[in-house]
Amino acid sequence: MRALVLERQRELSLRDIDLTQDVGPDDVKIKVHTVGICGSDVHYYTHGRIGPFIVDEPMVLGHEASGTVVEVGANVTGLKVGDRVCMEPGIPDMNSRATKLGLYNVDPSVTFWATPPIHGCLTPYVVHPAAFTFKLPDNVSFAEAAMVEPFAVGLQAASKARIAPGDLAVVIGAGPIGIMVTLAALAGGCSRVIIADLQPAKLAIAAQYPGIISVDIAKQKLADVVAAESDGWGADVVFEASGSPKAFDGIFALPRPGGCLVLVGMPVEPVAFDVVSAAAKEIRIETVFRYANVYDRAIAMIASGKVNLKPLVSETFPFEESIAAFERAAEGLPNDVKLQIRVDDEVA
Amino acid sequence: MRALVLERQRELSLRDIDLTQDVGPDDVKIKVHTVGICGSDVHYYTHGRIGPFIVDEPMVLGHEASGTVVEVGANVTGLKVGDRVCMEPGIPDMNSRATKLGLYNVDPSVTFWATPPIHGCLTPYVVHPAAFTFKLPDNVSFAEAAMVEPFAVGLQAASKARIAPGDLAVVIGAGPIGIMVTLAALAGGCSRVIIADLQPAKLAIAAQYPGIISVDIAKQKLADVVAAESDGWGADVVFEASGSPKAFDGIFALPRPGGCLVLVGMPVEPVAFDVVSAAAKEIRIETVFRYANVYDRAIAMIASGKVNLKPLVSETFPFEESIAAFERAAEGLPNDVKLQIRVDDEVA
Amino acid sequence: MRALVLERQRELSLRDIDLTQDVGPDDVKIKVHTVGICGSDVHYYTHGRIGPFIVDEPMVLGHEASGTVVEVGANVTGLKVGDRVCMEPGIPDMNSRATKLGLYNVDPSVTFWATPPIHGCLTPYVVHPAAFTFKLPDNVSFAEAAMVEPFAVGLQAASKARIAPGDLAVVIGAGPIGIMVTLAALAGGCSRVIIADLQPAKLAIAAQYPGIISVDIAKQKLADVVAAESDGWGADVVFEASGSPKAFDGIFALPRPGGCLVLVGMPVEPVAFDVVSAAAKEIRIETVFRYANVYDRAIAMIASGKVNLKPLVSETFPFEESIAAFERAAEGLPNDVKLQIRVDDEVA
Amino acid sequence: MRALVLERQRELSLRDIDLTQDVGPDDVKIKVHTVGICGSDVHYYTHGRIGPFIVDEPMVLGHEASGTVVEVGANVTGLKVGDRVCMEPGIPDMNSRATKLGLYNVDPSVTFWATPPIHGCLTPYVVHPAAFTFKLPDNVSFAEAAMVEPFAVGLQAASKARIAPGDLAVVIGAGPIGIMVTLAALAGGCSRVIIADLQPAKLAIAAQYPGIISVDIAKQKLADVVAAESDGWGADVVFEASGSPKAFDGIFALPRPGGCLVLVGMPVEPVAFDVVSAAAKEIRIETVFRYANVYDRAIAMIASGKVNLKPLVSETFPFEESIAAFERAAEGLPNDVKLQIRVDDEVA
Repeated sequence: MRALVLERQRELSLRDIDLTQDVGPDDVKIKVHTVGICGSDVHYYTHGRIGPFIVDEPMVLGHEASGTVVEVGANVTGLKVGDRVCMEPGIPDMNSRATKLGLYNVDPSVTFWATPPIHGCLTPYVVHPAAFTFKLPDNVSFAEAAMVEPFAVGLQAASKARIAPGDLAVVIGAGPIGIMVTLAALAGGCSRVIIADLQPAKLAIAAQYPGIISVDIAKQKLADVVAAESDGWGADVVFEASGSPKAFDGIFALPRPGGCLVLVGMPVEPVAFDVVSAAAKEIRIETVFRYANVYDRAIAMIASGKVNLKPLVSETFPFEESIAAFERAAEGLPNDVKLQIRVDDEVA
Repeated sequence: MRALVLERQRELSLRDIDLTQDVGPDDVKIKVHTVGICGSDVHYYTHGRIGPFIVDEPMVLGHEASGTVVEVGANVTGLKVGDRVCMEPGIPDMNSRATKLGLYNVDPSVTFWATPPIHGCLTPYVVHPAAFTFKLPDNVSFAEAAMVEPFAVGLQAASKARIAPGDLAVVIGAGPIGIMVTLAALAGGCSRVIIADLQPAKLAIAAQYPGIISVDIAKQKLADVVAAESDGWGADVVFEASGSPKAFDGIFALPRPGGCLVLVGMPVEPVAFDVVSAAAKEIRIETVFRYANVYDRAIAMIASGKVNLKPLVSETFPFEESIAAFERAAEGLPNDVKLQIRVDDEVA
Repeated sequence: MRALVLERQRELSLRDIDLTQDVGPDDVKIKVHTVGICGSDVHYYTHGRIGPFIVDEPMVLGHEASGTVVEVGANVTGLKVGDRVCMEPGIPDMNSRATKLGLYNVDPSVTFWATPPIHGCLTPYVVHPAAFTFKLPDNVSFAEAAMVEPFAVGLQAASKARIAPGDLAVVIGAGPIGIMVTLAALAGGCSRVIIADLQPAKLAIAAQYPGIISVDIAKQKLADVVAAESDGWGADVVFEASGSPKAFDGIFALPRPGGCLVLVGMPVEPVAFDVVSAAAKEIRIETVFRYANVYDRAIAMIASGKVNLKPLVSETFPFEESIAAFERAAEGLPNDVKLQIRVDDEVA
Repeated sequence: MRALVLERQRELSLRDIDLTQDVGPDDVKIKVHTVGICGSDVHYYTHGRIGPFIVDEPMVLGHEASGTVVEVGANVTGLKVGDRVCMEPGIPDMNSRATKLGLYNVDPSVTFWATPPIHGCLTPYVVHPAAFTFKLPDNVSFAEAAMVEPFAVGLQAASKARIAPGDLAVVIGAGPIGIMVTLAALAGGCSRVIIADLQPAKLAIAAQYPGIISVDIAKQKLADVVAAESDGWGADVVFEASGSPKAFDGIFALPRPGGCLVLVGMPVEPVAFDVVSAAAKEIRIETVFRYANVYDRAIAMIASGKVNLKPLVSETFPFEESIAAFERAAEGLPNDVKLQIRVDDEVA
């Protein structure tokens, strides 16, 4: 099977590789249409590892995928050949303690596409459990469907926040995940979302949506904007989506008494955390690891028009130009939100 | 002070009446601009009572009000003369056990405008605690501000539901409160809301908003629509906003396993409640009594454009035609969502 | 395999019956030691059905079981031969939407021991998924372990209530489930539990535990006791565990404003439900269907001594006297809380 | 009025001082019986400040008090002269946004006994709002009642944790607050609590209660004990009650996936916080600032016998020996949990 293979740090090949394609009784086989490039894919390419996960063997990249069902296992009832679908890339042990609790994303035994040593989906066909494969409504395109994965992170963050209708939220960081969190928070019940970043180009992309207040923190103090927007009370929810340790400096000036801080960004090193400032407002802090039970919700929000992800696809590359796509992604251009690869062109 | 007085069942006067106007240290005095007519006002007019609350003495009607601050008490810091405001009509004992818990709406000692024996606000000036008087942003009109009260009921219902972003909701009943609940549920995070009624005219008003699916239950079975929209799974939240005992017949076919039923409507008599059907899905049932801590959220949602209440003001009457306004309201025309009275015209 | 078989309504046999004993890769085989008799077992015996579940074919009874692992499937890692265990009798589809949400008890495809047409466990050996088989600490006896199932219902009810530490609870009904709910509520954080019934013998069993206030409602008005114990405020949580429609008459006088009603009992017919009274206090109503994710918690509470279920085993019968045990259970003696059958005696 | 006055850092006087004793309409006047010495009282004595709170003027110490009502204000209905009571020392603005939300402890305008510049209660008579004065059952002694304040911190922590019945908890730190948290967690629904400290004397005090597992972290690795007690799964709740920055090193090894960390201790400096480790388990982190709405619950738990605080009163000093009591407290003897002062002896 042809695939985009990360041979080792900084070396990509588009080549044949042996991938299991056995369709078990609870599985479906999918002809892949579109795959988005995630920051983690790029990080494995540029660094060869993310924390404890090290690329020791050649690994197929990609985990944000949509496609069409071409084969179904014997037990599968909810999907049929020809269904347009997107796929949730993490597979837990269905019998584990975490999974029985509904927390399958934090099951210690979960496997995830393109997280070593598991191959990803930048290849024409993949086999996947039907339970983690979601049928698309007709009005959701393959490109949008391949955006469900990153949007699901935003939706998980919004769910963890337990937004009350009308909340004022702040999102720190206007990268792809910051924008996803912003859109999820707005669609998820906030009246307004303040998004903060240092890069005007990123803020401009976010600011095209109504209900979003962008703050260039090179020019304005975020705490001042929050105070002005909340009559001095503070934000109901603050999402940290930059992963920058600097974001934690004075962060508890932003939420209101009794408010919430959701940590979405992943700082490489431990950050300096001011317990006294958090406690003085009795802030609740939530953390986010991927997502669980939100794919159906993400698809429903896209289909109903509550969330419009189309403006966030910055460019689409044919499968044969996958390596060029990754090189572009590795540049990290401020105007690029999401780059996608159309795998289907190659096999059509 | 001139006021719209309900003398007794079916007898209204627009006349002078003696009303306390002492401005205490924590109070503000407000020049009333607009007052909406609520179903409860009409019910006191037509029936002279609601349950245990009986109109024994002449009572000023009205509790959905906006206006302008004309005087502030000695301790008041958050409001000043000239501020445009709307007023939350229920006043609890601030020292009560319920209030300390944040549940001031269910404080047994709460008093509420136009609930016997408390006078309402259909009069040119009212005195009100500053803590229950909310400043309006410039882009929220007096007419919209007088809609905050009924919208707050919808928002309370949406808050009680604990909507997860992307939920599918059902609202039974497309009267004014049903529409308010629908808008609050949509803005509060639902991907879609199915609204059901027997009257096509009411459904047409609701259906003008995107994201709302209207169901004429004279023509379609609601459970079938819910099943079709949810792939057989059921709705995450069902709001009962009709107050009809018939709505409870088979109602537990609508929510999904683990879903929620929010009771907003108030059936006069006890309803037949099928515990076994509720338990088989482990349904959580929430009840709603007015609202607490949602006025600021309601105003924020209107100001940010997430909720547009303007199309719901069916007609506005001058204060001098208040009695005609009530007669029209008592007719219950299916196209009338909200009738309002501009009190300000009279005193300007 | 020898088993206690319900041939049809009112006819029991202790006889050989063909039962599948294939140990799948995720299963364990268990030598059954003790099985408790549940009210539902008795109801199938005396009525031949419970609601839509009808005994059309001979069915083995029993679902409250403990025993010893005698064989483990190829994938099983958490259990080994010789482990003392108890078994959770409901098995969901592990790939279903409900199960992924952590709500496997309300998965529409769940199967449950001794619920037609699924055979129960009153037989010397059973095969069960390892994921629903729980290892016992040394200090938990087989008799206690066979009580985990009914206690789990109490624990599910206590969990649904979301008890805050120090809550005052009321339990209506002092049958076996009422007592289980009472013990779970006390151990689960309540400061005190008021238990109400008409039968002094049942109340006496409950009253032997400290922290329990028993109310004979033939002699005292329950609402008066609650008011006296709560300074007129009401109970934080009310558990309805009688299943009697009469319990719903005036039930909303019992909880405090903002309190909770948990419905554990299952009235055969719809009950009269006073929405206005519930709403006036904004009562939250929770329903309970068996349990999910509480077996480990139940075992931990028994092992740590927080809950003592030993006094509730009224009598233990040898397997050969299983029919006599059911006849005794069908009498419904007020002093009988739990009757158990020692299956192990027969096979030892 | 005679009082224990902190003149400045390290200088205490037992002397007359002018204290307001006006009884407002919502107030009661209380003859003080017993006052406990809190770590914060001692810290003001030894350091003259706690963070931003600086002792610039002579200040009466003490905030853990019980006594007897001797006068009631005109509006007070729930208390009468002669009632035995304990007092919640923090008084918010009853009209504030935080208070209306039920979060009065984090109202920015709250005042608190013995937090500069507010005088405390180590004086024979105090005037206090009736809303924050709680009647004692006959079986709760003045000594126990003066322990309600520190126990309330434990109860707030246990409430924030949202303990599910049967949870396994860990408490880091066996000082007075750590022990209070431990008792609150156990009574609040945990099946077992593991308490960890470096000082065997403190652990011995905790270990006298059933259900508590003590871990001397000089001898055992806490993570190993948690793993052993939880079959490798982790604790449901971890309470950090030491305030030591070292406690945060590897802390996320302790909770289970989806578990909770409650921060009770207050490290002086920001701590090193490993976001990635927290996120990998999607840990929820709660913070605690004093307490709100738990005094009645604390009293109920003491009265019902669920919590026994008597063994924690290490020694009681007469009022005239208050300075000696503070000197003893400043020594921080490992066997001293709570030192109390009987103010009443002096005025009797």
